[in-house]
Amino acid sequence: MFFASDNSGPVHPEVLEALTEANMGYAMGYGADAQMEAVRHRLRDIFEAPEAAIYLVATGTAANSLALATLSQPFQTIFCSPVAHIHEDECNAPEFYTGGAKLTLVPGGDKMSAEALRQSIAGEEVRGVHGPQRGPVSITQVTERGSVYTTDELSALCAVAKDYDLPVHLDGARFTNALVSLKCSPADMTWKAGIDVVSFGGTKNGLMGVEAVIFFDPKHAWEFELRRKRGAHLFSKHRYLSAQMLAYLRDDLWLSSAQAANDSCAFLADGLQAAGATLEMPQANMVFAALPRATHQRLLDAGAVYHLWDGPLNGPEDEMVTARFVCDWSISRDEITAFLNLL
Amino acid sequence: MFFASDNSGPVHPEVLEALTEANMGYAMGYGADAQMEAVRHRLRDIFEAPEAAIYLVATGTAANSLALATLSQPFQTIFCSPVAHIHEDECNAPEFYTGGAKLTLVPGGDKMSAEALRQSIAGEEVRGVHGPQRGPVSITQVTERGSVYTTDELSALCAVAKDYDLPVHLDGARFTNALVSLKCSPADMTWKAGIDVVSFGGTKNGLMGVEAVIFFDPKHAWEFELRRKRGAHLFSKHRYLSAQMLAYLRDDLWLSSAQAANDSCAFLADGLQAAGATLEMPQANMVFAALPRATHQRLLDAGAVYHLWDGPLNGPEDEMVTARFVCDWSISRDEITAFLNLL
Amino acid sequence: MFFASDNSGPVHPEVLEALTEANMGYAMGYGADAQMEAVRHRLRDIFEAPEAAIYLVATGTAANSLALATLSQPFQTIFCSPVAHIHEDECNAPEFYTGGAKLTLVPGGDKMSAEALRQSIAGEEVRGVHGPQRGPVSITQVTERGSVYTTDELSALCAVAKDYDLPVHLDGARFTNALVSLKCSPADMTWKAGIDVVSFGGTKNGLMGVEAVIFFDPKHAWEFELRRKRGAHLFSKHRYLSAQMLAYLRDDLWLSSAQAANDSCAFLADGLQAAGATLEMPQANMVFAALPRATHQRLLDAGAVYHLWDGPLNGPEDEMVTARFVCDWSISRDEITAFLNLL
Amino acid sequence: MFFASDNSGPVHPEVLEALTEANMGYAMGYGADAQMEAVRHRLRDIFEAPEAAIYLVATGTAANSLALATLSQPFQTIFCSPVAHIHEDECNAPEFYTGGAKLTLVPGGDKMSAEALRQSIAGEEVRGVHGPQRGPVSITQVTERGSVYTTDELSALCAVAKDYDLPVHLDGARFTNALVSLKCSPADMTWKAGIDVVSFGGTKNGLMGVEAVIFFDPKHAWEFELRRKRGAHLFSKHRYLSAQMLAYLRDDLWLSSAQAANDSCAFLADGLQAAGATLEMPQANMVFAALPRATHQRLLDAGAVYHLWDGPLNGPEDEMVTARFVCDWSISRDEITAFLNLL
Repeated sequence: MFFASDNSGPVHPEVLEALTEANMGYAMGYGADAQMEAVRHRLRDIFEAPEAAIYLVATGTAANSLALATLSQPFQTIFCSPVAHIHEDECNAPEFYTGGAKLTLVPGGDKMSAEALRQSIAGEEVRGVHGPQRGPVSITQVTERGSVYTTDELSALCAVAKDYDLPVHLDGARFTNALVSLKCSPADMTWKAGIDVVSFGGTKNGLMGVEAVIFFDPKHAWEFELRRKRGAHLFSKHRYLSAQMLAYLRDDLWLSSAQAANDSCAFLADGLQAAGATLEMPQANMVFAALPRATHQRLLDAGAVYHLWDGPLNGPEDEMVTARFVCDWSISRDEITAFLNLL
Repeated sequence: MFFASDNSGPVHPEVLEALTEANMGYAMGYGADAQMEAVRHRLRDIFEAPEAAIYLVATGTAANSLALATLSQPFQTIFCSPVAHIHEDECNAPEFYTGGAKLTLVPGGDKMSAEALRQSIAGEEVRGVHGPQRGPVSITQVTERGSVYTTDELSALCAVAKDYDLPVHLDGARFTNALVSLKCSPADMTWKAGIDVVSFGGTKNGLMGVEAVIFFDPKHAWEFELRRKRGAHLFSKHRYLSAQMLAYLRDDLWLSSAQAANDSCAFLADGLQAAGATLEMPQANMVFAALPRATHQRLLDAGAVYHLWDGPLNGPEDEMVTARFVCDWSISRDEITAFLNLL
Repeated sequence: MFFASDNSGPVHPEVLEALTEANMGYAMGYGADAQMEAVRHRLRDIFEAPEAAIYLVATGTAANSLALATLSQPFQTIFCSPVAHIHEDECNAPEFYTGGAKLTLVPGGDKMSAEALRQSIAGEEVRGVHGPQRGPVSITQVTERGSVYTTDELSALCAVAKDYDLPVHLDGARFTNALVSLKCSPADMTWKAGIDVVSFGGTKNGLMGVEAVIFFDPKHAWEFELRRKRGAHLFSKHRYLSAQMLAYLRDDLWLSSAQAANDSCAFLADGLQAAGATLEMPQANMVFAALPRATHQRLLDAGAVYHLWDGPLNGPEDEMVTARFVCDWSISRDEITAFLNLL
Repeated sequence: MFFASDNSGPVHPEVLEALTEANMGYAMGYGADAQMEAVRHRLRDIFEAPEAAIYLVATGTAANSLALATLSQPFQTIFCSPVAHIHEDECNAPEFYTGGAKLTLVPGGDKMSAEALRQSIAGEEVRGVHGPQRGPVSITQVTERGSVYTTDELSALCAVAKDYDLPVHLDGARFTNALVSLKCSPADMTWKAGIDVVSFGGTKNGLMGVEAVIFFDPKHAWEFELRRKRGAHLFSKHRYLSAQMLAYLRDDLWLSSAQAANDSCAFLADGLQAAGATLEMPQANMVFAALPRATHQRLLDAGAVYHLWDGPLNGPEDEMVTARFVCDWSISRDEITAFLNLL
C-alpha cells in the first residue's frame, strides 16, 4: 500500500537483466559506448528527430538544470509554474547551474495558461538593463499536481515563447505517463508543438536512475557535454546508463509501464471516489483525494504510505484533508484492492 | 588486452547480484533507505570513526567537487599537485562547485612534497585582501602517475596544512589500491595521518558508479547534503547506490579486488621489463613503461588498448615512447600473458 | 521640472569641496586612508554602535548584493517584497553575488507584513533537503512605493526573523529620508528594532556614488572585505569615497538634505492634490499621483520629466494614469511651483 | 618620497574641475548622460575604431573581470602570465565573474613569449571534454614587473591566439605609460596588433576611479552591459565617470600625465644607478632596484615609502634586496631629488 512516490518502487526486471547483459568485458567510457549509439538511434526514431542531440544523466534534477543552463544566460529569468519542481524541489539547482539566473513564477495553478505566460513575459519588458532579461520557458508535463497539458495547450505556450524568441524546455520526469494519457506521438507532444529541449524521464517509470536530455536542434550539443562534465554528471561506466535506457525503449517497455501506472491510478481513484473521497479523476498516475482526517489516520496506522497535502495529521477528526496518491509501474491490483478494502 | 583505464572494465558479479537483491518492493528514497544505514555502520567500523558523516554519490568528480566545495570558500585557493585530477580532468568542476575558488599548483611532480607545499602556502601570505585566501589541501592517493604516498608522507603534508589551520581532502579514486599496497589500516591512511575528508572510490574497483564521501568531523554534514542536492547528485532510488557499496564492503571484496588489480599490474610490469621496457615498478595498479615507437605500433595494431603518454604515434620508429598501462580488478593472467607474448 | 529620480540630481557642493580638500598628496589606498578611520568613528557614534564593522562601496546594488552574500548561503532563499529593488532592478545581482540563492517574494504590497513574512518563512519548512533553506530577510526602507515602515513594524518583522534565527538586512538606499520622516534615531530604526546589517545610502541624497554597509555584529567583517574585493568593489583611491561620506555626515548635511527632499515632495503633493490628482500623501520623498492621460501628455510635452507607472502614454485621454514623482535634495520651490503652475 | 604605488597619488586638478563643471542640474543616469556620448566619440577617434563599443567602470578589477567574463565561458581557461594582476591580485574576481573559469599560467616571466603561449594553448588539446576548454588570452601592458611589450611582441601573441581562434584581452591598467614609451598609436598597440578588448586604465594615471572597457567588435556590447549591471558596476550618477574620462582625454592630459610619470621614473632610475643600485632601466613608470638592506632601512626610516620585493626588512645588513619604485603623474623632481640626496 505504497502510494508515496513513483520513485520509490523497484526497477523493472528487464532493466536489471539488461545491466547483467551489458556487464561483459571492457567498454569505452564517458558516453562512447556502443549502447549509447543505439540509444541515440532509437530515441531519434521514436521522436522522429534524426538530427537530435541526445544525452543521458542519472537524476531528473541534473537533466532539468543542465538543460536550462544550456538554454539560458545568468542575467536572464526562466518562466515556470509556481509549483514547478525546478522551483520548489531542487534546492536552487537551476540557480546554481545557470550561474545565478532567476525563476519567474507565472501566476496561476500548476498549469500555466498561455495568457498568464504572455503577461509574465511582457511584464519583464520595461526595465531594460535593470531587470533580468527574458530567458527560457520551462513546462512540466505531467505537472506536479497530476495534470496533463494537451498538445494544443503546449502549442499555445510555445507560440507565446516564440513570439518573444525564447526557447522552451519540457520537464518530462513523467513524460511517458502524459504521452499514454494523451495518446499522441512523442513528436506531437514535443517539437511539433514547439518544444526545443526535453528532459525525458526514466527513473520514475522503472529505471534505476537514468534520464535523457534531448535537444531537437543540436547546436547546443557540445556546450551541453561540457556542462555535463563540469557538473560531474558524465559517467565513466556510461554503458550502464545506456543499457537501462535501451531496455526501457525495447518492446515498448516505457509505454506499457506508464500505461500500467496510469491504469492503476484510475482504478485507485474509482475506488476512492466510491468510498466517498472528493477528487478529480486523474489524468496520469497521480490523484489528489480528500478524506476525513480520521480516515487518513486509520489508513496510515494500518500501514498505507502516502503524503498529506494540505494539512497536518493532527486536527479535527472529521475535517476533509487532501492527500496525494501516486502509482508506479509496479503496484498490483491486489495491493490497491487491499488498500480500498481497508478504506 | 585492455589497459586503457580501470573505469572501463565490468562490474563485479557480486555487485550486480546485490542490485538484484535490493530490487524488492518499495524503499524510502533520497538516502533514507535501510541499506544506507548499513553502509554507514560498515564504513564507520572500517575507518574506526564512529562519528563520521558518510554520503554516496555516483561519480568521482562529484565526490571531489562537493567535498572541496564544503571545505572551502569562493575567495580561497586549493593546494594540489599540477597533475591532480581535480585540476586536469574535471573541466573546471571544482571551480564550479566552489563558486569560483582557485587551484594553486604546488611545484613538483605527481607527489607533493611537504616542503613544496609549505612554500606554496607561505607564498600566499603577502597579499592580504588582494590575493586568494588559503583554502584546503587536496592530496591524490594513488597519484595520477601511479605513485603511492606513504603514511609518513601523508602525515607530513597534513602537518603542514595544520600549521596553517587548513583542512585536508584525500582524493581516493584508487583508495583501496593504495591501501593494499601500503598494508596499513584505513584509519592509518586517513584521519590518523591528519586527513579530514576522503573521496573513497568504488567505481574504478568494480562498482557501477558509486563513491563515498567521508567527513571524519561531522560538523559539515548538513551543508554537504544541501550541496549534494543542489548539485543534482542526490539519487531518488538511492538504495541502488547503497547496495553496491554494501556488496563492495562485504567479504572484503573491495580489498581482494584491489589486490588483484595490483598483482596483475606487478605481473605485467615484470613482463614489460623482461621484454626490454624502461619503467619503474608499479606501487599500485598503474605502470608507465617506455618502449620503442615501432613496438607500440605493433601492439596497438594487434588489438592492445592503452594510452601513449609522452608522444604521438607517428615519429621515429626506434624512439622510446612512454605509455600508461592500467590494470583493473577483472583482467586475467591469460590476457596479460597474451599481451606479453605479443610483445 | 525633473521628478524622474533622486539619483539624477547634482552632488551637493559641500561634497565636491570635500573631494578637493581630500586631493592633497599621497594616501594609503584600499580603505586604509585616514578619512575612512574618521568615517568609521562618525558612523559608530551616529548609530550608537561602537563595535560595528563599516565599509564603503560605490553603488547601492553593490551594498545590497555584498551584504546579502555575506549573510546567506547559496542553497538558501532570501525573503523580500515582490517589488523589492533587489528583485526587480538589479539584473540578478543578488543571485550572482550569493552564488545562486533564491529570492522568495512575500505576498502583499510594497511593505511586508509580519504575518505574511511568517507564513512565507513557515512555508519553506516542509521540503527538507529538497527545498531552498531559509535565509536572510531583506527589508526596503523607504519602500519602492514611497512607504516608510514604522519602528514598530520593523521590530515586528525582525521578531519573526529572529523566531527562525534568520538575519535581517535593511536596504536603506533612502535611509535618511525614512529617518527624518520617522523622527527617530538611527539606532531605533536599525539594531534596536533587530536589524543586523544596513545598506546606508548616500548616492540618492547628494553624494556622487557612495553607500556604507554597516554590520552591527562584526563577525562577518573579514568575509565582507574579501567579497568586496572579489566583487571588484574595493577602490584603490578609497579616500575619495571616504571624503564624500565624511562631508555627508558633517554638520548634519545628510539630515538636512533628506529633510529638504521630503519637504519638497510634501509641497509637490499638496499642489498635485489641489490640482485634482488622486494620491496618498507622501511619507518620504516620493509620491504616486493619478492624473488624466491628457494632462500627463501636456506636462511631459512642456518639459516635465517623470515616469508613468501603470499605463502607457497612448490610450484614452481622460483615463487616470498614475505617475511617480521623486524629489531630490536639490529641487527648488521655484521649480516645483513652475511645474504646478503648468499643471 | 612616495613610490609605493601609482594609485595612491592625487587626482589631477583638471579632473576635479571637470567634476565641478559636470555638477549642474539633472542628467540622465546609468550611462545615458551626454558626457558619455562625448567619451565614446573621443575614444573611437583616438583608437581609430568607429564601431567600438565603449563602457566605463570604476575599478581595474571590474574592467578586467567583466571583459574576461564577456569573452569566456565557465568551462574554459584563460591564458595569462604567472604574475598577471588577474591571477595574483584580484582575490579570484575573474573566477567569480566568469562563473568558475580557470586561469592557465603560461610558464616564463612577466612577459609571455609567443612560443610559451603556443605551447600552453596546445597543451590543452588532448583531454577533450575532461579538460578545461581554451578561452581568451589576457596580456598585461605595462606588465606587473614594469616591462612593455613591443607592438611586434603583441602581434606575435595575438597571432598565436588567432591560430586557435581565441580572443585577446589587454589589461591596460597602465595603458598610457606603455603607449608613450612605445611612441606608437593606440590603434597600433591594440586592434592593429590583434587585440579584441582593452581595459583602458585611468585611475593609475590621474583619475579618481575610472577605467574604460573597449570592445573593437561591438557584438558583445549588450552582454557586457548586462554583466556590468549584474556585477553592480553600473553607476546611477554616471556623468561623474564620464566627466573624469573626458577631462583625461582633453588636451592630451592622459598622454602628458603618463609621460611625466615615465620621465620621473627614468630620472629616479638614473639617480638610483648612480648611487650604486642594481637595476634595469625602466620602460615605463616602474623600476625594480636592488640596494643593501641597511640602505633600505635607512631610507624607510627617513620617510620614504615603497615596497621591498624579494625579501623581508630583517636580515643581513649588506645583502642586496630588490625594491619596487613606482612614479605617478604627480611626483615632483624636487621630491625625487630629496629622496636621491637622502640615498
